[in-house]
This record gives sequence, C-alpha cells and structure tokens, in this order.
Amino acid sequence: MGAATAAGAAVTADRLATTVAELRTRGPLVQCLTNVVVAQWTANTLLAAGASPAMVDNTHEARALAGGAGAVLVNLGTPQEDTVAAMREAVAGATDAGTPWVLDPVAAGALPWRTGVAQELLQIAAPAVVRGNASEILALDGGRGGRGVESVDTAEDALPAAEALARRHGCVVAVSGAVDHLTDGDRLIRVANGDVLLTKVTGAGCALGALMAACTAVTDDALVAAAAATALYTVAADAAATAARGPGSFAVALLDELAALEPAQLADRVRLS
Amino acid sequence: MGAATAAGAAVTADRLATTVAELRTRGPLVQCLTNVVVAQWTANTLLAAGASPAMVDNTHEARALAGGAGAVLVNLGTPQEDTVAAMREAVAGATDAGTPWVLDPVAAGALPWRTGVAQELLQIAAPAVVRGNASEILALDGGRGGRGVESVDTAEDALPAAEALARRHGCVVAVSGAVDHLTDGDRLIRVANGDVLLTKVTGAGCALGALMAACTAVTDDALVAAAAATALYTVAADAAATAARGPGSFAVALLDELAALEPAQLADRVRLS
Amino acid sequence: MGAATAAGAAVTADRLATTVAELRTRGPLVQCLTNVVVAQWTANTLLAAGASPAMVDNTHEARALAGGAGAVLVNLGTPQEDTVAAMREAVAGATDAGTPWVLDPVAAGALPWRTGVAQELLQIAAPAVVRGNASEILALDGGRGGRGVESVDTAEDALPAAEALARRHGCVVAVSGAVDHLTDGDRLIRVANGDVLLTKVTGAGCALGALMAACTAVTDDALVAAAAATALYTVAADAAATAARGPGSFAVALLDELAALEPAQLADRVRLS
Repeated sequence: MGAATAAGAAVTADRLATTVAELRTRGPLVQCLTNVVVAQWTANTLLAAGASPAMVDNTHEARALAGGAGAVLVNLGTPQEDTVAAMREAVAGATDAGTPWVLDPVAAGALPWRTGVAQELLQIAAPAVVRGNASEILALDGGRGGRGVESVDTAEDALPAAEALARRHGCVVAVSGAVDHLTDGDRLIRVANGDVLLTKVTGAGCALGALMAACTAVTDDALVAAAAATALYTVAADAAATAARGPGSFAVALLDELAALEPAQLADRVRLS
Repeated sequence: MGAATAAGAAVTADRLATTVAELRTRGPLVQCLTNVVVAQWTANTLLAAGASPAMVDNTHEARALAGGAGAVLVNLGTPQEDTVAAMREAVAGATDAGTPWVLDPVAAGALPWRTGVAQELLQIAAPAVVRGNASEILALDGGRGGRGVESVDTAEDALPAAEALARRHGCVVAVSGAVDHLTDGDRLIRVANGDVLLTKVTGAGCALGALMAACTAVTDDALVAAAAATALYTVAADAAATAARGPGSFAVALLDELAALEPAQLADRVRLS
Repeated sequence: MGAATAAGAAVTADRLATTVAELRTRGPLVQCLTNVVVAQWTANTLLAAGASPAMVDNTHEARALAGGAGAVLVNLGTPQEDTVAAMREAVAGATDAGTPWVLDPVAAGALPWRTGVAQELLQIAAPAVVRGNASEILALDGGRGGRGVESVDTAEDALPAAEALARRHGCVVAVSGAVDHLTDGDRLIRVANGDVLLTKVTGAGCALGALMAACTAVTDDALVAAAAATALYTVAADAAATAARGPGSFAVALLDELAALEPAQLADRVRLS
C-alpha cells in the first residue's frame, strides 16, 4: 500500500475515493484569493465538499495565512492592483512554508495584463496545480489566447502544451473540457464525467480549482489531488443534472450532491482513462 | 422585412422574439463592470439567457476588452476609485470601437458621488441604453433623488424625465417598475409582465441591465434590444413566480426559465403596449 | 406595556415577535459594509426578512449614508485598505447621527491586521451589537484567536468574555454556536434553534449580523433586536432544514422561510432561555 500510493504511482479510482474521504475527515483550511464573481460559489463548494474556506486576499494578511493554511488558491478572474499584490504575498508565503498552491489563470491569453501576472506568479515558485481551459493553457505555454473566459479549443488540443507546461514547472496541469485532461508531464489522466450545464454556471471551473487546492492539502501526489477534485465535482454534476430543470436548479443540486456523494459511489461512477 | 426592422420602426412582439433568438444563436460577449453584490447573479443570468459574461473591471484591461466585446455594461452599485477609473476606460474604449454600452446608475440621486460619476460617464459618450428605476431616472434628469436603491416613484411618474434624457443623449431610457416604460424620446414601449418577487431578489434590476447590453450586441435598434431583454426577463419571471414558494426558490426558477423560454412563447406571453 | 418594553426589561418570545413584525412593517434601510463573499447572500437575506439593503462601502458615500440609514453593519470578512477607510467613515457617521451599528469581527484573533481594525472601530464609538463566534469574541476580549473563520470554542466557553466585552463597551454581545448566547452584560438570553446546515452555507453568520442591524433600527433595546434577529434566522433555518436535501437546497429554502415566517409562529417555535 505504501509503495502503491507513492507519488508517481498509478492513479486509480480507489485512490481518488480515498483522497475524497481524507478531505471529508480532515477538513483542510483553503485560503482563496479569487474573483468577486465566484467567491460565494467557491466558498459554498468548499463547504459542501467538507473543506473550510478562508477568502483572505489583502496584503496585510495573505502571506501569514498562506503559511498556516492547508492549501492556497490563486484565481485571476477579477484582478485589481491590491489583490494582485496580495497574490504575490500569498504565493511567497505558501512557498516559504511548503503549502501547496493552485493557479487558475482565468482568461489568460485573452487579456495581456493578467497573462503577465500569471507568468510572474509561476516564476516565484511552482504551483502544485495549474488549472484552466484549453485556451488558457495554450496561452500560458506561449500560444495564442482565447475569447474572454471561454475556451475556443478542446482539452485534447491543449495536451501537448499542458505536458510542456507541467514539465517546465514541475507541476500538474489540469485542462477542463467535455473530457478533463490532467497531466504531470509523465502520467496522463482523463476524466469523462460532467455535464454541459457546468458551462452555464459562472465559476464552475473556478470552484473546481478551489477543490483541487483542498485535495492537495490531504495528499502529496498532486495529480491524484487534481483528479480526485475533478472526479468529485463532475460525478456530483452528473447526479445534479439528472434532477435539474435548468442552470438554476442544477447549481443548487450540485451543492447538495457534493455534500452527499460517498467515496465508494465516486469510485464506482468515475470514468477514468 | 428590411424596412420593417429598421431603427425607428414599430416595436412588435415578433421583433422581440427574433432578438432573443439572435441572442441565443450568437452568444455575444458582454463585458460587465458591475457591483460586487450582484456580479454572480448577473453572470448567471447572462449565461442562462445564452450570452457570455466577462466581468473585467480593472484599468489595465477594461478599455481593450470594450473594443472587442459585443457590448459593455456599466453599473454603479458599489463604485470604488479603481473600478470607476476602469469604467471611464471601458466607456472610452467602447466609444472608440463603436461597441454599444448600457449605463445602470444605481442609487443615483440618493448618493451624490455616484450621481456625479453617472453624469460624467454620460458626457464621455452616449450609451445605447440608460436603465434605472423611476427615482434614478428622475435624478439623472436633474430631479430629486430616491432612498437608497429603491424607487419612491412609479415608472409613469418618471416618463417625462425619461423622454427628456433620451432626447438629450440620443439614447434609450428604460424605467423599471410594476409596468416597465422604455423610450427613445420618440417611441414609447410598455411591458406589463414581471412579478413583485423581483423586488425581493438583489440585483434583479442590475441583471436586466446586463441582458439589455447583451441584446444591443445583436440588434441595431436599441429600443428593441432593451424591450427584448425586458420581455425575456419578465416573462421568465412570470413563469418562475408560478412555481416559487418565496424569494429563494423564485431566483432559482428564474434562471431555469431564462434558459428554457422559447422565442415563440415570449412573443405569445409578452404584454406590450 | 410601556414599562414592560423598556430597555432592560425581560426579553420574551412575544417581544421578539413584535420586533419582527415591526421589521416587516417599517422595512428599514440597512447600510452594509461587508465582505465580497457574502454580499449577495446578505442582501437577499435582508430583502427576504423585509428590510432594504444598501451595500455602500466607499469613502465618498459611507459617512453620509450612515447618517440617514436605519442601521449600519460593519463586517470584517474581506477587508481592504479602501473599504476599511469607508468603515471608519461609516462608524463616525453613524455615531454622529445616533444610527445604531453592528460589528461582525470575522476571523478576529486568527488574523492580526483585522483584529486591530476591529479594536480601532470599537474605540471610535460603541456599536449596538458585536456579533461573532466564540473564538472571535474571546479574541476581541484579549484572548487567543481561532482558526480562520471557524470557531474552535463553544458559545458557552466565550460567555465570560462576552459579558466583559459588553460591560466595557456598553453594548450587546451575541455569540453564535449550537446554542446562541446573547448578553448586554446584565441580562443573558440563549436561543436554542438552528441547524448544523447553517455551518455549510458561507455567510450564514454574516447575514445574521445584518439582520441584527435591521432589528436595531426598529427597537431601542439592542438585546431584543439581536435576539429577534437570531430567533427569526434560526427558526427559519429549522423549517428550511426539514425540507432540504443538502446545503444548496437548504440555503434556497432559508430565504423562502425568512419571507414566510409569521411573527406568531416565531413566538411559538423559538426556544428561549
């Protein structure tokens, strides 16, 4: 068991289920420096999944908290001068303390300023995970940008860029799409759950980044963490979509399902390859 | 058909339905500089209706994005120095590029600073639409202000002010109320749908302003755009109110109905005069 | 009746019901300087309960509005330099005008900067109510801090600190927990309603602070105001939990129940001691 769960080992449905069980048991504190549009949704997603959100994004407190938090999320959805300064502090504090952090480079490529901020944060220290859509990952790897916050490319298109980015920074890169692609530059995991209604709820991807951060707090294998979060979120989305009448009731049901989903159900329903 | 749909032509239920169909087909990118209270609700409303929100309100990116967006919303609900500076940039960028923009002067009249900001933005360039409640429109036309974000006047009371404002700036003025009144200074449209539960959901009016912006991206007749958004939102609200047990379930159902409403149903149910 | 309802008199279920009835009748304007995570939830809670939210937190407008508002809420969840400056203005404006204000010192103790801000605001003038969890109240009284926004202590543990704080500042201190404890340093009220699902909705406590502010606008007895808000919120939560499938549907039902709950039902169901 020790060898089987070492970093670099195969990513199985059982390991994802174990990670989600750990998340529920330990309830890690996840510091979020995220955008104002999705802050509430992100906090509610973390609470439903069993983690404890701390949305601290000022320069006075961001660094110290990152030292004590279980993990840190940095999301570039609505950057302002003062919150970007706090992001630099949080990444520095996380790095000093060995706290894992996740970068979500929202709209990288489409908007030059934040693309530069994302590159700058990557230079401070490697995150555990970079999470984005295909256009954002292509842009971070030096390619062309997308249109606003939506991807104009498929996750499959962005796989070479994801692998290159993962190897360059020694991190996991998670590309969301109809099929999510996750890689550490060596291993590749595909998760084929989820529903198109996720594209009709603002911050659906942003909250997934926060869940990935929560999972990095409970396992040393960042690829397992990112895949466990993806599995939890998209298997819950499958269940939520069954009962939903539209995007409003889907979002409500998604929170309910995130709280209700048992690790054994997750292992049973996740479509890994 | 060409002549019948020219700017200045009669605003019919069929034209509103066609505009909503176009909105769904084209999914325009709507840049929102809006308040932190309603940012999530606004983005979810746009997504449910078929548009693509981009909530970009920093000075580094607001101007460039306004040049490429389908439309821009400027909402004064929670102005701060930095976001007001971004609003000036966005309006300038929209004007240079010919991108239509919508002004929602939340609490104008009640609070002097933002009333001045609204007047200043109107001087940069005419918006396609000014959307507000009666008190806000009266205040923008130079009258007395309201109490906080609520109107103490009816839309009918504000009609002369709305017409004067529309003529002065060459824009559409939409006054929300139990019956919505919309005018370009020449034509007048009344939409008598909607439910009192809309007054119990924060940002109900703010999100309508964003929908108006979305519709200005798909038709050149700004009065048709504003009326189509109003019809979509209030006909969906009628349906949502039927099933709702209170303001919480109403808001959820409203998103579901916005996504589900067919243009033909809208044409059938809208109460225009 | 006049003597029976004077400040300092016994806090009965009937007095709480009367306060909630007044809240519905008068619909006070509640200025909120709160955190970006919970701003929407807070506004929707106030609307459902019958109050009128005004989320004004800029330095240009905060002071003047506090002079005219029915009550002011200051919540330290996501402080930034500019919003903290607005909080100072709002507290000064409220004090000058005799407007009651409520302090919610989110994460006080866990994070030094905001702990200092809370202490500084308390020195400007006494609030009507300080509302927090046990860890926050212990920290404000000079004790050790908690972990992030969650309490690691019970409300009972914090009672001596709450009483000391109440006497020092001449205010009510409300400590949330499985059983809520409220004191003005002399009288003590316990409210034993509420559901554990409240801990799974971000901003549940923050919105309660806003409801307390709303109630201070309609009664001079701040202990009655704080207890009425607590009773309204937790009795509504009891009803919402009955129908909820998880945290998502619970939050929706809570808004519905806040709007539907009759004062007589509240008097019947509240568990006071």
